[in-house]
Amino acid sequence: MHRTRVRVVEDALDANNTIARANRADFDRASVTVVNFMSAPGAGKTALLERVVRDLDSSVRVGVLEGDVEGSLDADRLAGLHVPVTQLNTASGFGGECHLDANMVRSALPELPLGDIDLLVIENVGNLVCPAEFRVGEDARVMVCAVTEGEDKPLKYPLMFRTCDLVLINKIDLLPHLDVDLEKLVANVDAVHPGVARMLVSAKTGEGIDAWRDWLVARTAAAGAPA
Amino acid sequence: MHRTRVRVVEDALDANNTIARANRADFDRASVTVVNFMSAPGAGKTALLERVVRDLDSSVRVGVLEGDVEGSLDADRLAGLHVPVTQLNTASGFGGECHLDANMVRSALPELPLGDIDLLVIENVGNLVCPAEFRVGEDARVMVCAVTEGEDKPLKYPLMFRTCDLVLINKIDLLPHLDVDLEKLVANVDAVHPGVARMLVSAKTGEGIDAWRDWLVARTAAAGAPA
Repeated sequence: MHRTRVRVVEDALDANNTIARANRADFDRASVTVVNFMSAPGAGKTALLERVVRDLDSSVRVGVLEGDVEGSLDADRLAGLHVPVTQLNTASGFGGECHLDANMVRSALPELPLGDIDLLVIENVGNLVCPAEFRVGEDARVMVCAVTEGEDKPLKYPLMFRTCDLVLINKIDLLPHLDVDLEKLVANVDAVHPGVARMLVSAKTGEGIDAWRDWLVARTAAAGAPA
Repeated sequence: MHRTRVRVVEDALDANNTIARANRADFDRASVTVVNFMSAPGAGKTALLERVVRDLDSSVRVGVLEGDVEGSLDADRLAGLHVPVTQLNTASGFGGECHLDANMVRSALPELPLGDIDLLVIENVGNLVCPAEFRVGEDARVMVCAVTEGEDKPLKYPLMFRTCDLVLINKIDLLPHLDVDLEKLVANVDAVHPGVARMLVSAKTGEGIDAWRDWLVARTAAAGAPA
């Protein structure tokens, strides 16, 4: 039983990678840089997006694909920023899929204004396990880790930390009120993914947001530069 | 492709329920009350367990089954409390399973000292989606929702809130430092699961821990009472 199940899942992952490559080719044709944005529930993805999108230079036209099990709360929040937002709900699968996969993103492609944007941010379902397994055709993976989650998350959910290109350590404004050792958290990130880019940020105070915005702009420009 | 996948998963859920019933029968034979303890990563399950176990009356002998993708950090923390702790890692499956299922719990049964405990707390993998799908043979489901996660989690992850018997709203000591509306959070819990028991707690200050301990003792006593 167990072996059968693993084989089925591996087949599904292989199919996922095939579709992710097709997405990638479509994004490349449209010259759109794609960021897969991931975290645990409530780590602050939407708040960080609101912050960074608000002051993006007009040279980087951004669109957002919102993945949620149910509802459109985050899409509603982002709609006020006057950027194109597309909602993708996973509730139709298996009582709510816990991640986006390449085929779900592919099903949203016709709704995405790829010709009018330079950067697509895909806000994944809040989860530190399965989203890390499924490529969706992204150029880069950014994850958010809130200091309120404790120092040990990199050690407990290593694949997510290991496969991302940037770790945003959020809610640092709360550090004075927590029994959390920031140095230990950072050391755990480094232990799991040596050399990964990381930034200390607060969606509440705005600290670190400029650095994250610069990173997004640089990634988008690098993708758009002639080879 | 999509339909095939759903059918496979439904078969897996059916198999899961069969095994959950077998677990349930074993727990009943041993007169052990079982709590499936769930939350998002970093919501404070282990800290709340440490708090509540420390002062449990000797009339309730507790054991813990720790589910983690990797490592034994939480089990190590709980070992200091001198209660039996069994570690279950999900990393062998598919790059780390994002939940415990009935068969994983069943595989741990030979390691559990069922004859020596009255209450087994199963600390699930931190995730608000899939753990809600998989019964493991529990009597009750308790979930932790930290106020730092924001007011909207019940609306975004409704199945978890809808299938639990008690919601612990944790980290209330941080409320003065957050832009989170506790009344709105509580209203969202009620909207998704009308009438569910809920408690405001802080693992840090100890607020609300007595009420949770009383709840656990009452559930254990009710299960042990002659029918």
